Amino acid sequence: MSEYPSHLLEQAVEAFNSLPGIGRRTALRLALHMLRKSKDEVRRFTDSISTFREEVKHCRVCHNISDEEICDICSDPRRDRSTICVVQNVQDVMAIENTRQYKGLYHVLGGIISPMDGIGPSDIFIDSLVERVAGGEIKEVIMALSSTTDGETTRFFISRRLEPYPVEMTTIASGISVGEELEYTDEITLGRSIVNRVKI
Amino acid sequence: MSEYPSHLLEQAVEAFNSLPGIGRRTALRLALHMLRKSKDEVRRFTDSISTFREEVKHCRVCHNISDEEICDICSDPRRDRSTICVVQNVQDVMAIENTRQYKGLYHVLGGIISPMDGIGPSDIFIDSLVERVAGGEIKEVIMALSSTTDGETTRFFISRRLEPYPVEMTTIASGISVGEELEYTDEITLGRSIVNRVKI
Repeated sequence: MSEYPSHLLEQAVEAFNSLPGIGRRTALRLALHMLRKSKDEVRRFTDSISTFREEVKHCRVCHNISDEEICDICSDPRRDRSTICVVQNVQDVMAIENTRQYKGLYHVLGGIISPMDGIGPSDIFIDSLVERVAGGEIKEVIMALSSTTDGETTRFFISRRLEPYPVEMTTIASGISVGEELEYTDEITLGRSIVNRVKI
Repeated sequence: MSEYPSHLLEQAVEAFNSLPGIGRRTALRLALHMLRKSKDEVRRFTDSISTFREEVKHCRVCHNISDEEICDICSDPRRDRSTICVVQNVQDVMAIENTRQYKGLYHVLGGIISPMDGIGPSDIFIDSLVERVAGGEIKEVIMALSSTTDGETTRFFISRRLEPYPVEMTTIASGISVGEELEYTDEITLGRSIVNRVKI
């Protein structure tokens, strides 16, 4: 006999266990928790996840997650269309939006250059950033990347690629501590770091 | 604009956030993790959970989780059919099975009497335990309940209900510390506590 009294339970435990940070014991608890919910509730739970995976889009312009071809920020006429803030991922956009200190556009790289992890410049959305800047409408590019070696490498690489264009390059100011992930910075520090951004 | 760049993302985050012990930040990570998996992988993930919820059964005899009407343990001819081990939940059955110290049958109460939580004797499967004992085949009932006040209350209540029947009542021995949940006891301690069970 397997460790589990039911093959179906085992499958559900393995599903939860496949999630990052969820061990087998927690996975078992989550699976058994499902039995305490009605079938309708569980259906709503799984539907939310599968609909998200099937239907969510990435903005054609900035690569942020979006329900439409163009995201709410890129299509918002009140945003400052002359400034782009370059970030690593979707969580970073959300973190900066929460500070309410920034009214420009974004560019989500979808990763960071990391020789250790085998992620090179062509694996993230740098070409499309260069294209946006080459369009001529952009006056300033703010680099809002984590203050890590990989962040520095990426910032350096992007500033080299943007050198030919008459665009002001800035980076978010001190306030994010060295070695700290941007995603976990508190809102006040992060907001101030955007206001006090400095020229590269 | 909402906190999330996408309504679909927000729904997925809320789904994960509805799970016990999963906060909003972890929920966001799990939702975004789904985007790194193929649509097929995500479909397998949600299918495992919904199939489990839709199709899993509870054994008609012992109330353990099962793929069939009668669970693998109750239908196994090699198990000792004269002994019933009474436990609070499915996790407890799995914990005791893992010790490989017990070859009898189980009875899953599906909860524990808890006046604080408003759970009374009729909310858990005590009547069906009495019926099984009344059947006459059972020689011994082992109480394997957590060493908490609620566990004591439940043990006391069940032993009163079984008093009229010529059945030996035992309880798992010292080894589980007072106030500790049975589910978290290490296998050696738990195994020994079953071997050294004492008469109530």
